[in-house]
Parts: sequence; structure tokens; C-alpha cells
Amino acid sequence: MDAFALIQQGALEIISGDDLKKKLNSGKKLKIKLGTDPSAPDLHLGHTVVLRKLREFQELGHEVIFLIGDFTAAIGDPTGKSETRPPLSRAQIEQNAATYQEQVFKILDRHQTRVVYNSSWISQLTPADILRLMSQMTVAQMLEREDFRKRYAEKRSIALHEFLYPLLQGYDSVALQADVELGGTDQKFNLLVGRDLQAAAGQEPQNIVIMPILEGLDGVHKMSKSLGNHVGITEPPNEMFGKLMSLPDALMPRYYQLLTSLTFDKNEHPRAAKEKLARYIITQYHSAAAADAAAENFKNVFANSGVPDDITTLPAKDFLDLPLAKILAASGLSATNSEAKRDIQAGAVKVNGQKITDGGLVLVTQDTLNVEFILQVGKRKFVKLY
Amino acid sequence: MDAFALIQQGALEIISGDDLKKKLNSGKKLKIKLGTDPSAPDLHLGHTVVLRKLREFQELGHEVIFLIGDFTAAIGDPTGKSETRPPLSRAQIEQNAATYQEQVFKILDRHQTRVVYNSSWISQLTPADILRLMSQMTVAQMLEREDFRKRYAEKRSIALHEFLYPLLQGYDSVALQADVELGGTDQKFNLLVGRDLQAAAGQEPQNIVIMPILEGLDGVHKMSKSLGNHVGITEPPNEMFGKLMSLPDALMPRYYQLLTSLTFDKNEHPRAAKEKLARYIITQYHSAAAADAAAENFKNVFANSGVPDDITTLPAKDFLDLPLAKILAASGLSATNSEAKRDIQAGAVKVNGQKITDGGLVLVTQDTLNVEFILQVGKRKFVKLY
Repeated sequence: MDAFALIQQGALEIISGDDLKKKLNSGKKLKIKLGTDPSAPDLHLGHTVVLRKLREFQELGHEVIFLIGDFTAAIGDPTGKSETRPPLSRAQIEQNAATYQEQVFKILDRHQTRVVYNSSWISQLTPADILRLMSQMTVAQMLEREDFRKRYAEKRSIALHEFLYPLLQGYDSVALQADVELGGTDQKFNLLVGRDLQAAAGQEPQNIVIMPILEGLDGVHKMSKSLGNHVGITEPPNEMFGKLMSLPDALMPRYYQLLTSLTFDKNEHPRAAKEKLARYIITQYHSAAAADAAAENFKNVFANSGVPDDITTLPAKDFLDLPLAKILAASGLSATNSEAKRDIQAGAVKVNGQKITDGGLVLVTQDTLNVEFILQVGKRKFVKLY
Repeated sequence: MDAFALIQQGALEIISGDDLKKKLNSGKKLKIKLGTDPSAPDLHLGHTVVLRKLREFQELGHEVIFLIGDFTAAIGDPTGKSETRPPLSRAQIEQNAATYQEQVFKILDRHQTRVVYNSSWISQLTPADILRLMSQMTVAQMLEREDFRKRYAEKRSIALHEFLYPLLQGYDSVALQADVELGGTDQKFNLLVGRDLQAAAGQEPQNIVIMPILEGLDGVHKMSKSLGNHVGITEPPNEMFGKLMSLPDALMPRYYQLLTSLTFDKNEHPRAAKEKLARYIITQYHSAAAADAAAENFKNVFANSGVPDDITTLPAKDFLDLPLAKILAASGLSATNSEAKRDIQAGAVKVNGQKITDGGLVLVTQDTLNVEFILQVGKRKFVKLY
């Protein structure tokens, strides 16, 4: 496979493909930029989509510039509106950056990575420099950015300094003379600003490689720690294994493509395919031995619990807001509502392997609509709600 | 008259009047700020409206801070879109500032005026300071400013740095700890930003005194050099006199109020009232002797031309786009169209004292609708179009 074909795999969009192809074929060692926010140093699999693509660039011999966005982290959100962005002290930033790197170098080659802090050039800018930077974009262009457009239309406030961030991020590319920048789809606007500012500064504009955003374990929302649908790359092997085995089948081809170099075989049994995926990922972030142990542990805890491979799956939404006893009757696990109550009192009912004695428990709510529940009555009767 | 009543005279709006009254009655020597743009150093009467108000503050014992906005002048308009704002060199700025002051001190008391350059504090701001400054306003607030709102609605571009100017102007008030700032109605938004930033910095917000914008000699548009409807304060006395005598009668009470300390007498003959106004202004910017000489010169050149005081005035719009010959016939100066042509050919026709031999000349167009034309046929027949 040629270099460009490799880079193109899994990418959503490349701007522009022709230019990147030329750069890749030029024999020049390229500077590949990735910007990161040191205020949240814990990586999950969602972050690794872009990092794996960076690794491919390294394997092609290029230099990755790993940019720690410490300038804004040190300021925080001066509007004081965002609780998630308190200003960080220098010591905290250093510590987060160290944590970040420790994780990143499980994917990237440390020797082909240059770590830089953007405060080192941004704090040198004079007020006149900033003014000139700002003069290069219009208010209308800024308000075209999806999130700004939406907030402005909905009359939610946008503080003026928020308009400065895309410009500063673009200026980073000028300062670094980046050849290529990577990012998720949510970064496309900012990456394009970098191209514009480089062109205005007389540089050849960076090419941008847009990677898809990985869905979380719920299969719906983007993977995010705050949504709790993530797999952290420092999580213990057993947790990783359990989480990945709960992945909706439909997501598997995507996880295979974006998180592994394995080929997804659609004829393979989903359980086997998931196990292979989980082993691959645990091997990458822990070790092959850890992957073996996690698989073994999973088998002991879950597989031996007797849940049949061909379990009946019913749509969770049909059981929205119902108490457990009614779910048992409605799903056929218990013959009637009263039998369901007796089964529960007798301790014969388990949910996800755990004995439940409260017949009034509401399992499926709007919030848990995407959670998988395995209901068991006695040894042999199972139903999966999903 | 008490201090507040004096300041209130002629002002369009004071924010807030109660606070300003308290400050004026406190006995404290107040800092009164006026910001100026050193890229256009020639003052005309329009500028003097605010300066005369500043002088009143000085007469009450307060200090005027005359701020030269050199920071932005040294940058110019970095978009390169405005031909009127090329960047100025330090030497040019100094020279303009000197020219400006020479003119300003015809109105202000030099000894109660402090001249400052805003680059001295703005150029000290760090990128983090600017970011924090920007965080104090929202995009929506900025787009409420009349000119921005209009341009945005009309899809005309607003460069991002234009949003920085009101903030920097407001920051000037913080840096100076201004008690009061003066400006024309077009400055109201910026003056209010100063109040907000001062409050955010823990200062008592400046009070603002909004003065009306003076109409130019056309009686319609604001006085402006580029519209050619201005009277420059360094113009020769004869030009001042001639221009002020051409003032539409309706503007006189306004000119009296905003440019003089005279009381306008509506029973006085307009010509006499205009002469008094012209003498007052020439005395202020030149001398009483110069005013006398200009009045004498005007009488020789214009009054002796035989134009009667009770000249018939016809509405100019009735003669829109007509050739001169038709105007003469229609206004009754010539009996018929053919007689009008003969009068013109005979050299008997003058417009504003000048002989005209082209019967096809179109005097009144949309552009000249507010210009006064005195038409004369022979020695005795006059009509004024206005």
C-alpha cells in the first residue's frame, strides 16, 4: 500500500488529498501537528483514533509535533461560566502533560515525537500582533462555525475571547510551520483557520486529516468520560474486557477499523469478534498476558454464569419505566405478575448476574435506554433487554 | 447656574445624571477624558462641540485628559480595506498630535490639560490580559452596536479586530481611572463599554456626557471634511465668514447653542444673526480684528453685488434637473424661454455672482439640492433657489 492510501484509511476527509499526496511523495520529512488540551489528561479509546493515525505518519518516517495547549489552560475560562475549565497552575500543567505523554507513548514513537508548549510563542505576541491576527477573519466567518452558529441562533452567549481560540490554534500552525494537522470532525473549522493563517503568512498551508469521532459503548453518543460510555486506556484489563464485550454488535466494524489493524470478519460470531477486539486493545495498553488473564476472568465471571449465546433479546424501550416485577411478567420470564413477585421474594431473580429483591426497581429509564440488561429467573430462563 | 446645569446645557444625554451631579458637588477634582484619533489632525467646528464642553469642565476646576489614540493609529487598519486608515509612523503620529494640540488649545486651557498616549499602557498588555478583556463582552453585545448590527445584517464584513477597538477604548478609561468621558452620539456604545470595564475592575464607572453631532453647512449631513460641508478651525477668516453666511437659517439656533456662548435671538434678521455668529467664531479661532476684516471683505465682495436683503426664494427642488434657460423662464426672471436664451447669450445672467453663458447648464441636481444659488438677470432681477 502506498503512503497516501495508508493515511487515507479510516480518515473522513483530507484537505487537500492531492497536496498531501505530493508532500508524502516528496521524500521530505513532514511535521505532523496534533494539538491537545492539558486540562483533561486521561485518554480513552476515542482519543486514540487520531493518535493511531499519527503513529502511521511516524511509521512513514515523519515527525509528530505533540502540542500541549498550555497557554489557554493557564488562563482557564475567564468568563467563569465553565466549571470544566478552571485555570491550571504551571505545576498542574506540567503534571498533566507528563500524565498525557505517559499514555500517548503507548501509541506514538517517543523518538519521533517533539513535545512543545504553545505558551512559548503565544505569550510573546504583542497586542499589535494579536490585532493583526484578528484582522484576518471576519465575524461572519467565525459565526459559520457550527457550535457558534447554533449558540448565536439560540441566543446563548458567546464571549468574545472564544473567537480568539481558533485564531491562536491556527497561529500555532504558523509558528510550527506544520505540514499536516490531524483532528476530529469537531476540529475541522479550527484546522482550516490554520491553513488560512499559514497562507497569509506566506507558508504552504498545512494539509488536514479529519478523523471520525468514535462512538462510545452506548453506540450513540461520542465516547466521552462525562457520558460514562468510555474505555480509558489506563483502565485495568478486566474492566476493559468487560466493557468491550458489552459493545453493540453494530459498532464492531467501526471499532476494528479505528482502533486496530485487524480485519473485521463479518462471518465470525460477534462474541468471538469482540473477544478478539478486547484482546487486541488490552495487549496494546497492557500486555498479551494481561489480555489472556482478562479473557479468562471474564469467562469465569460471565460465561460460566450460564447466559446462553442465543439469548432472546427484547427492545428495551418496550419496558420503559416499568417496575421489575411487571417486566418479568411481560417478557414471559414469569408466568404472571404475582409469580414474578414470588420469584423475586424467593431470590431467584438476577439482573446482570446480580440478585435483585426489590420488585419495584425500574430498570429502563430514558437514561439507561442504551444499557444492556440481562434478566435471569432461576438457572435457565434468560432475556436480554437492549 | 450650578455646575451640573452648566454641563447639561446642550448635552443630548448624561449617564447617569444623578451620579455626575454627586461627583460635581463632591469638591473632588475630576478626570475628564476625551479620546482622539491622531490620523486626521485637522479640527473643524463639529469637533469643537465636545471641546467646548470640556472647557466648561476646566472652568469648573477639573482636569481634562486629552488622549491620543496612537496605539491603533500606529497599526492602521490591518485589513487593508480602509484607505483612510494607513498605519502612521511614530514621527507622523507625533506631528499630528502636535498639530492637533495646537488647535485644541484654542479652546482648552493648556494648564488644566494632560496629554497622554494610549500606546503607553496598551502595548504593555499581555496576550492573557487581552483574552481576559475580551471575555468581558459577548458577541451579541458587540453586534448590538448600531454600525456593527447594520453591517452584519447587510452581510458586509466586520473584521474580528474591529471588536477589539471598543474594548481597548474602554480599557483606556480603566487605565486612566476616568471620572467622566465625553463623546458624540456615535461614541455612546464605546463610552458605555468603558463603564462596564471600570465596574469589572472595581472602579466607580465613569459618567458619560453625550454631545449632539453638528450638522454641516448643508444642514443635513454631519459636518465632515470628506463631505465638504465643514468649516475648519484653521481656515482663513474670509473663508470662515463666507461659509458661515451661507448657513441655512434653520441651523442657526443650533450653531448658536453648540458653538458659542451667545444667546440666539429669533427676532433678529437672519443675516445679522449669521454675521454675529461668524464674528464670534472668527474671534475665537483668529482674533476680533480678523473678524472685523472678514466682515468688511464679505460686504465688499457679496453685499455690494447688489443682492437685495428681501430676495425672492424659490424651492430648489422645483427646478431639479432643468437647464438654466428653463429655470430663468420658470422663475420669472426672463419672460419666456427664448428671452432667457437671449439674456444668457447677451452675458446678462449671473449665478452666485458669476457670469454664465451656457443655457444648458443644469444647476439643481440631487447632489446640489442643498446648495444656495442666487440667479441674477441684469442689475435688478434676483431670485434665490434653495
